[in-house]
Order: sequence, then C-alpha cells, then structure tokens
Amino acid sequence: MNIDWIAVDWGSTHLRAWACSREGTVLQRAESAKGMTQLQPEQFEPTLLELVEPWLMSRTTTVVACGMVGARQGWIEAPYRPVPCRPLPAQRPIEAPMTDSRMRVFIVPGLSQASPVDVMRGEETQLAGVLAGQPGYQGVVCLPGTHCKWVQMQDGQVTGFQTFMTGELYALLSEYSVLRHGLSGDDKMGEAWDNHAFVDASREAFSHAEQMPAALFGLRAQGLLNGLAPATARARLSGLLIGSELAAARSLWQGRNLTLVGNIGLPALYLEALHAQDIEVQALNSQRITLDGLREVFALVSADQPETAANES
Amino acid sequence: MNIDWIAVDWGSTHLRAWACSREGTVLQRAESAKGMTQLQPEQFEPTLLELVEPWLMSRTTTVVACGMVGARQGWIEAPYRPVPCRPLPAQRPIEAPMTDSRMRVFIVPGLSQASPVDVMRGEETQLAGVLAGQPGYQGVVCLPGTHCKWVQMQDGQVTGFQTFMTGELYALLSEYSVLRHGLSGDDKMGEAWDNHAFVDASREAFSHAEQMPAALFGLRAQGLLNGLAPATARARLSGLLIGSELAAARSLWQGRNLTLVGNIGLPALYLEALHAQDIEVQALNSQRITLDGLREVFALVSADQPETAANES
Repeated sequence: MNIDWIAVDWGSTHLRAWACSREGTVLQRAESAKGMTQLQPEQFEPTLLELVEPWLMSRTTTVVACGMVGARQGWIEAPYRPVPCRPLPAQRPIEAPMTDSRMRVFIVPGLSQASPVDVMRGEETQLAGVLAGQPGYQGVVCLPGTHCKWVQMQDGQVTGFQTFMTGELYALLSEYSVLRHGLSGDDKMGEAWDNHAFVDASREAFSHAEQMPAALFGLRAQGLLNGLAPATARARLSGLLIGSELAAARSLWQGRNLTLVGNIGLPALYLEALHAQDIEVQALNSQRITLDGLREVFALVSADQPETAANES
Repeated sequence: MNIDWIAVDWGSTHLRAWACSREGTVLQRAESAKGMTQLQPEQFEPTLLELVEPWLMSRTTTVVACGMVGARQGWIEAPYRPVPCRPLPAQRPIEAPMTDSRMRVFIVPGLSQASPVDVMRGEETQLAGVLAGQPGYQGVVCLPGTHCKWVQMQDGQVTGFQTFMTGELYALLSEYSVLRHGLSGDDKMGEAWDNHAFVDASREAFSHAEQMPAALFGLRAQGLLNGLAPATARARLSGLLIGSELAAARSLWQGRNLTLVGNIGLPALYLEALHAQDIEVQALNSQRITLDGLREVFALVSADQPETAANES
C-alpha cells in the first residue's frame, strides 16, 4: 500500500473519501450518505473511521477535509475567512479533535463576504483546484449545486461571490408544491427530459427575468388544460429557474472569462443555458478540481510539519 | 329558523358554510379543516352534512358552493369556463350527486384562460361579489392567497388573469429550505414582524425584480454572519417575494383601477407593498365579497327553478 494521505469532501448530505499517494494519485475511493446534517459532533470521528479504516496503518495518516464538516454544527468550526483573499489559508487549517491516533484531520475553512453578505464552504477548495491547473486564472467560476456559487477571481484571489438557491428551489417545487402533480408520471424514474423546452424556457427567463414568478403556475395550468407532459414540465421549470439565475448573475459574468465546475447532471444544464445565450464557457471536471484543491491543502499541511513529512517518506 | 339557503366556500384546505336568510343575511356559520385535498368523491356529502345538518329542515334546502370542490378530484367536476366571460354562468351551475334529499348542492365552475394558460376556482365567485357591489367596475382585482390572482375586468367580464405562487413559495422556503433556520426562533409563535424590513425588501425587489433570486440566500448568510433576527428575516423574505410579484404583474395593474380582496393577514402585506410604491388601491372584505358572490349564484339557481322558489316562500 502506497497510501500516503486521505482527501475528504464532506458536505451536508454526502461523505466522499479518496486514498492518495504522496504524488496525489488516487489509489482507493469510498463514499457514504452520512452527510454533516445528520451527525452530532461526536459522531464525525467514528463515521470517518468506518469509511477509511481499511486504509490506515500504524503510523499517523494525514486527512484533509473540506465542506460543511467545518460548519458551526459540524465536527469543529473552521471560521470563515473574509474575501478578498486567496481560496486557501497560508497556514495549515484547523485540526479536528481525535481519539484515534492513526489519523490527524485538518478541515479547510470556508469564505465569507461582508457585502452583499454571503458564505461558502467547500467551494473554496474547488477554487484552489481551478488555480492549481490555471495559476493565473482571471475571471468568473460558476459552481452549480443545491446552492450555486458565482465567484470572481483575480490575481489568485477570490474578490467576490454570489450564491443562488436555484437547485434547492427546483427540489422544493418539484417535491412539495402544487406543481409536483405535473412534474412526474410519464416514466418510472422521472428521467425523461425535453431539452428544447429547457432551452426555450431558459431563454425566456433570461430575457424577461422579472416575469419568471409569473410563469411558474403556468406549468400547473398547462398540465390541467393541455396535458403538458411531465418531461416537458420538468425541463421548463428547470429552464425558468436557471435562466433567471443567469440574468441575476449577469453583472458578475458579463465580459469576463467564465469557467464552469462540472460537466454532467446539473452543471450540464448550466452549460446548455449558457450556450443558448452564446456565452463561451470552459467546463472542468468537478471531482478532479476538488481533488486538486485538497492536494493543495495537503501540501500546506505537509510544509507546516516537515519533521513528520521526513518520517513518513 | 329563517334559514333559506346555505352558502359554502370549499377550498383545498378549508370548508366554510353560512346559513343565510332569503335576503342573504347570515344567520349561522360553521367551518372545518376538511378541505378538498383530503376527501374522496364519496366523502363530500357526509362531510358537508356533518357541518350543516343542524340547519336542515324537512323541505329541500339549496346549497351553493364555490372553490376546489368543483375540481376534477373534487365532489363533481364543474368544467372551467373560458375567458373572456362574466364571472358566473348565465344558467344554474352543475348539481352534485346526493343521496340525502334535504339538500340540493350546486357547484360554481372555475374560469380558464387559453394564453397564457391559467385557471382559477373560487375566485370567480369573489369577482362576482365585487361586481355585485360595483356593477360597472373597470380595472384590476388582486386576490392574495396561496396562489394570488390578478384579474382584469371590463364591462362586467373577466378579460384576463395571471396566477402567482408567491404564498406557496413563502411557505415552502420557510418550512423546508435552508432559510428555515433563520426564519424562526425569536418568539414562540413566530409572529413578531419587522415591517420596515418588509417595506424595504418589497421596494428593492420591485425596483430590481431580476435580482430577487440573488437576494434569497443572503437571508441565510446574514443569519450566520450578522445574527439577522428571525422577525426581520421573515419580513424580508415576504417583501422580496411580494415585491417581485408586483413587478411581474405590473403590465396588468399599471394605469388601471386596483381593488384588493382582503384587508388583514396576507392581503394587508400586499396593501403595504402597494402603498410603498404609492399605488392607490381599494381594499374589500374578503368574506363579504365571497358571500356576495355566492348570493348571486343562489339568485341564478332560484331564478332557474321558479316552482321550487314559490313552494319555499
């Protein structure tokens, strides 16, 4: 086994871990659904051990973790660093309390913005990953997710960002609202998709963003009166929400380089909506970016403890 | 007992009944939480009987009902009437199937619009109530609720309307979204209210409606970083949603007379947001308007069966 350190992405609803060589090659991977929101502080250590114990040796292994694990309700709070600043701190990040001596766990702090008030946790590590691949990157990075972030980067620093609840809004509307009746039912998995409807709705909401709230109930009415297909209704709802987000974020991305983190699933929809507006965008692989960022954090931790690094090599 | 007929407002989540004299005076009232969404078709008759049985006599009593009771999943479908049209049909509306001979129940049909596709059920009766008080009313009627309706009226007809899910969006966001953490907790009932925050947010969303989606997550971030008070966060969320609705509905109300149905609770917030824009509006009592409308329906039914009316007088 050449496992030298462990990279961990621990969000609200997921836990992913990668066993890495010193050079950063992924040797093993594991994941669980034990996200931060379902854990009490004392449950983080056993939860992580359960997942990565097969990778541990007698000597101490360094673990670097990013995401909601560092929130106030997480394992240990890694206080936000205010922007403008580089995505990662200059020193090793906060260490989580451990009883098992086979691991030392370092948790990456999130970023905060004073005005307009905003916060991120986890995305700062991905931004470090973007910079690892493109050290001089100037422009905007869009990170789609339950809460999508639009981030301005300049001279290696995060200079500003804006969060949108678009993914969560879609989930709420399709699970709980009156629209849910028209959004499911045409296939067992709810996977059919009408991409023309998505593109049209994203264009409509982008061009007339102030009208987006007026369009939502129309999905229900079209289901009742015209038998609108669920695959079309889903695509249209998604297009309306993402199109209005692109419009609201316009001042962030207009006239700047744009990089999208992710290329399948939700990020692919952002790519489609951006292309519908003839907006050029570079799409990066989300997991690779996360790992590149966590590798930067590991380098920080290693540089800060040269004696340990010497012992380990 | 001078009970001559019974007025019923039967929505998705409520059932309200009024025992009325021939002249329309309310003699008794009763209500239950047995809304249309929790009833199977065969349960409507016993549910209504349970509520109004004390008011029934040996002779047949006429009941007129409006709302979701006439939906496809209701007691019996009262098919939508397409606009432009008067709020009420010219003939007596559809009669519900009954086994008990002491009641005859007539259900008011809703209205539909072909483009943009939209529907209403229940509000058409309130619109008839508005016209009963002001026969020549020209202008727009706003009916706040879970789904708020903006209705254009001209020459006694409904010429167009638009539905907004604002009330439902507020409920979803405050009950299920990440914002919920910052929206409760400062008082037991969640009733404290920061009206300045409401007015400011409504102005902000009205003036920059396309930015509304960008403002939502800020409520969460302000709670985390600045300890935003829940009473302020609730008011601000409500202001953002209602302000953006006013902006999206602008083409409907601008330059026209505006009447608001309701004066306390949610309608009062619409009134406040409209006043913040110096928009003049006439506010009417919601229950009185509903009863006025149901009285119009009763007149229709009575006129259509003169022999019964003669027997009853």
